[in-house]
Amino acid sequence: MILLKNLINKPPSSSLSFKSISESFVIKNINKYYTTSTNLNLKNNILFNNSDNKMSIDNKEKIRAGLEDLMKRRFFITQSFSIYGGQAGLYDYGPPGCAVKANLINLWRQHFVLNEDMSEVDCVSVTPEQVLKASGHVAKFADFMVKDEVTKAFYRADHILEAHIQTLLKDTSKMSKEQIEELNFVLAKAGDYNQEQLKQALNKYNVKAPETGNALTEPYPFNLMFQTQIGPSGLSTGYLRPETAQGIFTNFGKLYEYNGKKLPFAAAQIGNAFRNEIAPRAGLLRVREFTMAEIEHFVNPNNKTHPKFQEIQHIQANLLSSDSQDKSSEIEVCTFGDAVQKKLIDNETLAYFMARTQQFLHTVGIKPQGLRFRQHQKNEMAHYAQDCWDAEILSSYGWVECVGHADRSCYDLKVHATESKSNLSAYEEFKEPQFVDIAKVVVMPAAISKKHRAAVSPIKKYLTELKDDLTKALEIQETITKDGHYNLVLDGNTYDITADMVTISKAQEKKNGHTFFPHVIEPSFGLGRIIYSILEQNFYTRENDEQRGVLSLPAIIAPVKASILPLTSSDRIAPFVQTISKSLKEVNISTKVDDTGNAIGRKYARTDEIGIPFGVTIDFQTIEDNTVTLRERDTTKQVRIPISELSSTLRKLCDLTVSWSDILKTFPIYENQSE
Amino acid sequence: MILLKNLINKPPSSSLSFKSISESFVIKNINKYYTTSTNLNLKNNILFNNSDNKMSIDNKEKIRAGLEDLMKRRFFITQSFSIYGGQAGLYDYGPPGCAVKANLINLWRQHFVLNEDMSEVDCVSVTPEQVLKASGHVAKFADFMVKDEVTKAFYRADHILEAHIQTLLKDTSKMSKEQIEELNFVLAKAGDYNQEQLKQALNKYNVKAPETGNALTEPYPFNLMFQTQIGPSGLSTGYLRPETAQGIFTNFGKLYEYNGKKLPFAAAQIGNAFRNEIAPRAGLLRVREFTMAEIEHFVNPNNKTHPKFQEIQHIQANLLSSDSQDKSSEIEVCTFGDAVQKKLIDNETLAYFMARTQQFLHTVGIKPQGLRFRQHQKNEMAHYAQDCWDAEILSSYGWVECVGHADRSCYDLKVHATESKSNLSAYEEFKEPQFVDIAKVVVMPAAISKKHRAAVSPIKKYLTELKDDLTKALEIQETITKDGHYNLVLDGNTYDITADMVTISKAQEKKNGHTFFPHVIEPSFGLGRIIYSILEQNFYTRENDEQRGVLSLPAIIAPVKASILPLTSSDRIAPFVQTISKSLKEVNISTKVDDTGNAIGRKYARTDEIGIPFGVTIDFQTIEDNTVTLRERDTTKQVRIPISELSSTLRKLCDLTVSWSDILKTFPIYENQSE
Repeated sequence: MILLKNLINKPPSSSLSFKSISESFVIKNINKYYTTSTNLNLKNNILFNNSDNKMSIDNKEKIRAGLEDLMKRRFFITQSFSIYGGQAGLYDYGPPGCAVKANLINLWRQHFVLNEDMSEVDCVSVTPEQVLKASGHVAKFADFMVKDEVTKAFYRADHILEAHIQTLLKDTSKMSKEQIEELNFVLAKAGDYNQEQLKQALNKYNVKAPETGNALTEPYPFNLMFQTQIGPSGLSTGYLRPETAQGIFTNFGKLYEYNGKKLPFAAAQIGNAFRNEIAPRAGLLRVREFTMAEIEHFVNPNNKTHPKFQEIQHIQANLLSSDSQDKSSEIEVCTFGDAVQKKLIDNETLAYFMARTQQFLHTVGIKPQGLRFRQHQKNEMAHYAQDCWDAEILSSYGWVECVGHADRSCYDLKVHATESKSNLSAYEEFKEPQFVDIAKVVVMPAAISKKHRAAVSPIKKYLTELKDDLTKALEIQETITKDGHYNLVLDGNTYDITADMVTISKAQEKKNGHTFFPHVIEPSFGLGRIIYSILEQNFYTRENDEQRGVLSLPAIIAPVKASILPLTSSDRIAPFVQTISKSLKEVNISTKVDDTGNAIGRKYARTDEIGIPFGVTIDFQTIEDNTVTLRERDTTKQVRIPISELSSTLRKLCDLTVSWSDILKTFPIYENQSE
Repeated sequence: MILLKNLINKPPSSSLSFKSISESFVIKNINKYYTTSTNLNLKNNILFNNSDNKMSIDNKEKIRAGLEDLMKRRFFITQSFSIYGGQAGLYDYGPPGCAVKANLINLWRQHFVLNEDMSEVDCVSVTPEQVLKASGHVAKFADFMVKDEVTKAFYRADHILEAHIQTLLKDTSKMSKEQIEELNFVLAKAGDYNQEQLKQALNKYNVKAPETGNALTEPYPFNLMFQTQIGPSGLSTGYLRPETAQGIFTNFGKLYEYNGKKLPFAAAQIGNAFRNEIAPRAGLLRVREFTMAEIEHFVNPNNKTHPKFQEIQHIQANLLSSDSQDKSSEIEVCTFGDAVQKKLIDNETLAYFMARTQQFLHTVGIKPQGLRFRQHQKNEMAHYAQDCWDAEILSSYGWVECVGHADRSCYDLKVHATESKSNLSAYEEFKEPQFVDIAKVVVMPAAISKKHRAAVSPIKKYLTELKDDLTKALEIQETITKDGHYNLVLDGNTYDITADMVTISKAQEKKNGHTFFPHVIEPSFGLGRIIYSILEQNFYTRENDEQRGVLSLPAIIAPVKASILPLTSSDRIAPFVQTISKSLKEVNISTKVDDTGNAIGRKYARTDEIGIPFGVTIDFQTIEDNTVTLRERDTTKQVRIPISELSSTLRKLCDLTVSWSDILKTFPIYENQSE
């Protein structure tokens, strides 16, 4: 089931260049994260609890219920305005969720903007109608609704169709095998149906309003953009942007200039987008306001190679090609190098970004078995798109599109250039001047004027501009030669063009360069979906205690790196807590102190729940020894460690320069009170 | 002139606690920044170019024109959708502007969220009407408009009044001194006028529509919130949030729980807010979509001390008190400790945040002379607010409010509790049980029933609840004793209450704690205004070349830390450029390579314009020596430095562990080709 509406409008450009970025978010030893995070131990995770480590979603109800309870209790994420009864499709991030999101954004900036030298921009959400008319969103960014003919209650047409089919499938005793197959096919495809297909299916299965049994209206489109008015005139309609990309396309000229008028270069943007869903469902996966991180990589259409392709070509990926979806739906495990070689993935640049996305997702805690790339099928893709691959992540909702990778050709720049009458093209100087075939057009205005006095100017213009369209020009010349005349249609009028008015021949012209619309390759990340997927794939319960949920978040993403847990609340211990907390902050280790009177087992459980990887325990005994105990979340093993070595050790653990098993060998293991 | 509309609705709460935060944005040696950045050399800055280092804005036209040209050329900030003619009040950040903004946000997070252990949240912008009705925004968040009676062209009422007065003041030859003073007074106050005051002033000065001379309508309010519809029903009105604060207030219950039900604690939020200005002007200072960073610090109203007050009490600030504004308008230079002592600032917590704001602003490049705190005057403040101080920054637009600091009492929590019927109160356990005076109320239902059969239940409820309102209870008892009866008005009906129905006496009750609405102290940052002010205060031109603008940004905020400038573009040099760039990224120094064929002087000028503090130059000679030259932006001095020491040296320079003058003493000075 594809949960994300395919973005409807965008085209391509081509490679990378130097740009400004902020420095303070750089994470050390990022390459270690790439290599080690893919080897995370999965044995206790509910999603992956089979002995052969294959993904299983048999437990999906249990996973989802457990995680949702945890998210609510620990204020990871909550429905917005819940004191007013809540608002469907709107969610707020509480402190742990907000910290995970900030960490994710910092890492994304480092991984893409800094390391790929991208130009990051920050554009507004409120967008005038003209811009979104050009992009196609005003006309086409819609889902289909039906209404109860009597009560006027409304439904999403595909949802009501799906619900109806599911009801039919509850009792298949009187159905043939073919009938059952047909129903399952409709169920799988309903989300992609167009207006006519929905109408036919609703009629065929005689779908009625579920609450009343009344007849339904025909499906009609509902635009998913939030509409508003800009300024007080009442005449300036605007929308909240449904994606961040348009801000990049409309600034293409300035970005091209900023990058020294060289291709390829990439622009990036992190920001909110808004979609006024008809009936939001699936929790965090389909919401009305969400944060995206989008890259628009502009390339010369004649050269989609990537200079750093050799760095990623050996990386293996789970690929579900368009062909395979037509047949067996088997995932092919294949390197990105091979995939480009055999033209499974269209070009190096598209594959390069898919590989970088995979590295990013593995680093933040998505399991290799829980990530695949699914190629869009021909009928899914926009007509201008050259190739599209969605990074899909497995969760209890199935495989969910979380990152799109699309080669959008030059669609977006072209539509904005036309609508705004601005120059959004690039110019490439040839290495050496080239001789190119052109049409030599000699126009005779006097002869035209004799027959078409009122239209000399547009006819002359049309014929002159044939220079750069050799094929058309020769076709006209041939017609004139053969038939003695050519019927030229301009603005609805037909003009008779004869041999005395124009002579066309093939010629060559020396050119130093050429002007073209860059293509654009677009990786587009839905951060909320990624966050939810990370939480699900890293949520497990202790073998000996099903009530104790643990979030096995990589340290790089964990909302807090270390908890500080005094065993007893005492005035003698309090100053140590402050000193240790301060010393950890000085080496950039964020901390959370729990100085409540709760038992230590309960304190650990509470830090495990929000994914804090390390716990520091202090008691009278450790103060005496100038030590603390240090506990790792997933093994629950503890060591005694001198206070003087604590901050440097935690720094190394978070930087992955030492592993927890190294620590277990270095410091005395502490057999603690039962948790 | 106050350019920012006062936030209309918010109350106070009180102190700090531990919370989750992200770790990767921590900046080293932040205390060094606090101490050194206030001593920045101002001598070349146009705003501060007097010999006594006092702020001067005589050059304001020149500063603004120069900076605006720079911002446009180097794509710091641009009007949004400029290819479509642009949209008033909407601006996009290009790569250097976006990087400065990201650095500012990272630093803000470290300075406030991490160091003060705040709970950061991330709430949605789309807000249902009910929430903003409760907060008061639907009724009151408005500016006043007038329309041309004939053409229906619209104007902001205060703007049209100001323009008219300015025209009158152009020729004062026939005016008395009193008349001139009156006009200047109206000009200064027009922005704060209410509907009635505007109406009177427009009438008095006979203001007409400027283009046509037609009569104007009376001023009427225009709500500044962008309105939209949530979902397809057409019945669910929503608005884009005009501030981020409401997301914190509506989540107060969950935040209180997350903080272990202890006060004080602070929540923070960084996000966009939207205001549908009638006529945006003053460039980036009054826009329709902008990023805010807000803190809501919840306190017990009985205790607004701050545990870290002693850390900031010695810090001096420029204070413009409410009293002083009534009299001389002289700024008082005074420590925060003294200001609280003499009750100039209401309480320690408010003063603590003002001091932390000042540290933040100095760190990011605001000059001490260009920052003051202005106290709200009585008529400016909301009725519930206890004290308000705006951090105002001097720019070519005058003193502009950039950060508000308000003690908002319990206004916001109270209105949301009432409207949502939710519990948004806090509970404090007394250290020892306390005996408090209560009313002992003995109700006799039978007697009430005899006379008011239909209303026994509400009467009984009212009388019973008098328990906690001793004053009212005793007043009723006294009336009954004196007059023999009391007229109780309930829901519009009057009931005769006599001595046989109720007996009230004073008693004492032992209580373990009490329930109350926390007060809230709110620092609220407008990041776009701060960014614009930083750029203006750090923009100067070279003495010997007025065309060469320089942005003297502190390294912590600079969009890129080091430029890498090969003197000639050559295949022999290119690999060194890559190696050096990579080695700098590894120590978190962001770089921008300029390998164009431009002369080195032009390359320096281009890096100076976007505020890059350090430049690394490579040529055949330096490759030979295994050195590079390192240049500092403001002194333009250069040294020769071994490549092996470059990255550690730049790291130290950015961390302020060495100064540029140290470097000049350590490495051989390089007398370069003229810039």
